[in-house]
Amino acid sequence: MRNILIIGAGRSSSSLIKYLLDKSSSENLHITIGDLSVENAEQKINNHPNASAMKLDVFNEVERIDAIQKSDIVISMLPAHLHIEVAKNCIEFNKHMVTASYISKEMKALDEEAKQKGLIFMNEIGLDPGIDHMSAMDVIDRIREEGGKMLLFESFCGGLVAPESDTNLWNYKFTWNPRNVVLAGQGGASKFIQEGAYKYIPYHKLFRRTEFLTINGSGQFEAYANRDSLKYRSIYGLDDIPTMYRGTVRKVGYSRAWNVFVQLGMTDDSYTIEDSENMSYRDFTNSFLAYSPSDSVELKFRSYLKIDQDDIMWEKFVELDIFNGNKKVELKNATPAQILQKILMDSWTLQPDDKDMIVMHHKFGYQDKDGKHQIESSMIIKGDDQTYTAMAKTVGLPVAMATLKILNGDITTPGVQLPINKEVYEPILKELEDYGINFVEKKVPYLGYNPEGVIG
Amino acid sequence: MRNILIIGAGRSSSSLIKYLLDKSSSENLHITIGDLSVENAEQKINNHPNASAMKLDVFNEVERIDAIQKSDIVISMLPAHLHIEVAKNCIEFNKHMVTASYISKEMKALDEEAKQKGLIFMNEIGLDPGIDHMSAMDVIDRIREEGGKMLLFESFCGGLVAPESDTNLWNYKFTWNPRNVVLAGQGGASKFIQEGAYKYIPYHKLFRRTEFLTINGSGQFEAYANRDSLKYRSIYGLDDIPTMYRGTVRKVGYSRAWNVFVQLGMTDDSYTIEDSENMSYRDFTNSFLAYSPSDSVELKFRSYLKIDQDDIMWEKFVELDIFNGNKKVELKNATPAQILQKILMDSWTLQPDDKDMIVMHHKFGYQDKDGKHQIESSMIIKGDDQTYTAMAKTVGLPVAMATLKILNGDITTPGVQLPINKEVYEPILKELEDYGINFVEKKVPYLGYNPEGVIG
Repeated sequence: MRNILIIGAGRSSSSLIKYLLDKSSSENLHITIGDLSVENAEQKINNHPNASAMKLDVFNEVERIDAIQKSDIVISMLPAHLHIEVAKNCIEFNKHMVTASYISKEMKALDEEAKQKGLIFMNEIGLDPGIDHMSAMDVIDRIREEGGKMLLFESFCGGLVAPESDTNLWNYKFTWNPRNVVLAGQGGASKFIQEGAYKYIPYHKLFRRTEFLTINGSGQFEAYANRDSLKYRSIYGLDDIPTMYRGTVRKVGYSRAWNVFVQLGMTDDSYTIEDSENMSYRDFTNSFLAYSPSDSVELKFRSYLKIDQDDIMWEKFVELDIFNGNKKVELKNATPAQILQKILMDSWTLQPDDKDMIVMHHKFGYQDKDGKHQIESSMIIKGDDQTYTAMAKTVGLPVAMATLKILNGDITTPGVQLPINKEVYEPILKELEDYGINFVEKKVPYLGYNPEGVIG
Repeated sequence: MRNILIIGAGRSSSSLIKYLLDKSSSENLHITIGDLSVENAEQKINNHPNASAMKLDVFNEVERIDAIQKSDIVISMLPAHLHIEVAKNCIEFNKHMVTASYISKEMKALDEEAKQKGLIFMNEIGLDPGIDHMSAMDVIDRIREEGGKMLLFESFCGGLVAPESDTNLWNYKFTWNPRNVVLAGQGGASKFIQEGAYKYIPYHKLFRRTEFLTINGSGQFEAYANRDSLKYRSIYGLDDIPTMYRGTVRKVGYSRAWNVFVQLGMTDDSYTIEDSENMSYRDFTNSFLAYSPSDSVELKFRSYLKIDQDDIMWEKFVELDIFNGNKKVELKNATPAQILQKILMDSWTLQPDDKDMIVMHHKFGYQDKDGKHQIESSMIIKGDDQTYTAMAKTVGLPVAMATLKILNGDITTPGVQLPINKEVYEPILKELEDYGINFVEKKVPYLGYNPEGVIG
């Protein structure tokens, strides 16, 4: 019997737990789920004979060490900043570890010790980061093996609502942490490189510098640039690549409207609004507009943001009820971002029958002896329901598969790592296909940014 | 003989030192100037018999304590964050202290000890903060003494170039720390209140939400809001005032053009530009514009920022040479803000014969038994030359006057304070008039924001 400890049984762990429970008899697994709420852990297990639930407070060192000592491998589904204490214990008690989070500096610092002890600390093996790395490296390695030289890598990912559940004017609902959506893009300029030219976009222009992308069979989308595309050059071994861009996908029109919130200052999380509790939604909106008591909030809004009388964007704001003078904010000492999140959750919360959808799209440009070529590779996944969401599947299944492959000795390279090695991505991408998670690849003409050399 | 120690002999201390030297014989003063550069201190003294220069490294505790012990009062003209060690020594050795800086938390914490020892720690007694406090409290106290109730306080201040030296299209030159000008307004939303309505402006909209002001005889100016106007309500004892606004003055048109730098992201000081050293000014500008090799940097700039073909703002950017492909940035690992500062210093540095100018303008609205009234109070001061600048006079003279009045027992209230008490502001405002620093006051009709109650 091999013991797997999963710490944290949040919404994103449903598919992860189901996968391991389904394999538990054939693979001889016992799964222990530790969560601050034992009821939460029990519900996920649903009386399965090969699993047990326990209350686990990760800040309680005795509880934590005891649970880790009894396991063969540890999956941490905690918020990213809480992994490190678990990781240190895993080093101490010789346990492998798997997370879906970005490798922190503190985690990276354990690499040498993990290697010395032959331990595998697999990180960034969810969706994004995770499937993005694996599906990109799969194509990049193939291009290089065939003698091609990479010219361009652009990668786009977004968590959206499925078309059949797409019922609002924004074509968007919260399928993941709403706070992260409200704060998206903050904390510094976005950086990328296009045909050798470095480009920088400040936060307040980010949502006006979108790119359109057409995904075969699924229509048109738009994307805004992620914070730091440049660092992926060294991660993917593409240090000299002239074009590297990563972006977040939305349905067309979302960003232009979201930009209005950014321009107003409604996404600011750095200060609290005076008397926020007793404000109406209309008061909140008005606090970002010039004082002019003889004008309506609506007209000041249109005038300030230059929204024409016949601009279809206008209805998006009306739909969110931000001009409603009767609805109260009801949040004490709230930041603008917290208030905006509340307003959006009124409209953008998934309904019981709603399904989510994940879109991932890569562009690979390269040169070989025959000239320049481009490959596009796309994945579109819909959720089954509100438990086995597309997000839960795409985050949880790679984590679960990596865990089992480490236990079974199919993944053997030790150290703190992310899934960019063929040993990892090849079998996992193959197995993901059995779960309907696959990429559609096609060759297209290489475009670049000025294919006809147009001047003037 | 009374000993005055001045720590820090920078540009802003010229008028301060001259005032004290001029009074040194009649007032029986000996002035010691301590600076990291003894040459700098010697130059300021110019062989005056009642003064001595010394090398003083404020981080050298022995040097610092020795100098403080020998003095009767200490003036610190150091950068604000360096006052605190001097202040602690002043407490220890029973010395009064004067600074032109905002009271820090650490300084505030010494209040009780200073009071117990009967020491006067006078701060914020330069221009802004300083003359703004004194000239405002002078009028506010008078209105209240006459039974008026304050309805509105708006205060504007700016360091500009004198009209006779105003030779560029921006009507602006650096008369103070250029870095502070480039970073002005950053670090959080601006907050103020107008007729009871709280208003918040994010940084990226700050320079598009200016107010115009006409100052009798000196033409039209504009002002953008300072970071936190709200805190002045409690400082001035105006907790219930419905309108409180403080702003920074520029010549009309400056802010609309400056906004272009903000929009581009050129004022960002949070990251460094790749290979900044070898960039041309044109490359720098282009790094904030979309990649499109078939279009000129000029057209991309106009299109992105919506600058019409006949917009007079365009020439302002051409004047700064930001489209020059031959001029190199020549700064290693520089932030956008550092590069922008360098570009601006090429154009905005004061020439040897240039003079600066300070503008301060207050509006006081109040109600008494006869109705609503408004008082406007303005000060305009020009520099004599590049040594006795308007900035040096308005910062240094109040500091010098407060120092002498403390020594002479004309100011007696102990504790860490700013000049809002009549004991301080009345004699100093009166003496400033002898140096040409005076306010012109006039009564105007009370306006408010919608005097005719216009709707629709």
